[in-house]
Amino acid sequence: MDCEKISSGTCPVGRAVARVGDAWSLLILRDAGLGLTRFDEFQKSLGIAPNILARRLAALTADGLLERRRYNERPPRHEYVLTDCGRDYLPILQAIGAWGRTHFGDGSVVRLVDAETGAPVEPIIVDRVTGRALRDVSVRVAPPA
Amino acid sequence: MDCEKISSGTCPVGRAVARVGDAWSLLILRDAGLGLTRFDEFQKSLGIAPNILARRLAALTADGLLERRRYNERPPRHEYVLTDCGRDYLPILQAIGAWGRTHFGDGSVVRLVDAETGAPVEPIIVDRVTGRALRDVSVRVAPPA
Repeated sequence: MDCEKISSGTCPVGRAVARVGDAWSLLILRDAGLGLTRFDEFQKSLGIAPNILARRLAALTADGLLERRRYNERPPRHEYVLTDCGRDYLPILQAIGAWGRTHFGDGSVVRLVDAETGAPVEPIIVDRVTGRALRDVSVRVAPPA
Repeated sequence: MDCEKISSGTCPVGRAVARVGDAWSLLILRDAGLGLTRFDEFQKSLGIAPNILARRLAALTADGLLERRRYNERPPRHEYVLTDCGRDYLPILQAIGAWGRTHFGDGSVVRLVDAETGAPVEPIIVDRVTGRALRDVSVRVAPPA
């Protein structure tokens, strides 16, 4: 994929998927949203090869979704924390999870609940202004404003 | 990535990204949502190698996001049309686009408008029951119901 071309093109979907358009990056963000911060935590959760994990963490950090922080001086140890940009992606992952549950949820899948009330959370994507579910809105792409 | 393990695990995000967790698949779905149906249309839009495109279309068809239909008998020609499952993914792509526009939208990026009214469409992910923006809701994962 010509990531450079797509990451600077006029389509914001292309710009986004050039940054987080692979499954590992999405699962790393998911785990970061669940509170994981350390290399070995991600590795254990994902069963991912260390070199691949290191590359993905570096890319997500370079693109501004994660911030790399030193939490120990000797020996030097770093953790990875979601930035505002990365945190903004979490609702999308929740919507992806809802889609996965609807269409590929046979058998046992975990659920998302409100951390305070325990009530089930059901992500839906709406238009901010009208409140209409975007599933029901016919859209088209318009040139830049 | 051990797709087989993740695609049948208990996490619906994992199940989803095992199906559409790569940039090409996401861009193919985006283009299908914009009305493209034919192999050469996707190829031209994406600048993708034919063998990669063929593999992605076959995977999206096998996973039930696209339906392969014959539109010409002699010579045999097929088109790819979104299923309900694939169409359900489009609002997620619109939310991804909004995220891309917010965080990586420097310069000119296209906009999403209501096809009927021309009004700008601003995707936001909320909880269906409470209407609260999920960006502001603290969630946790609960075991299967």
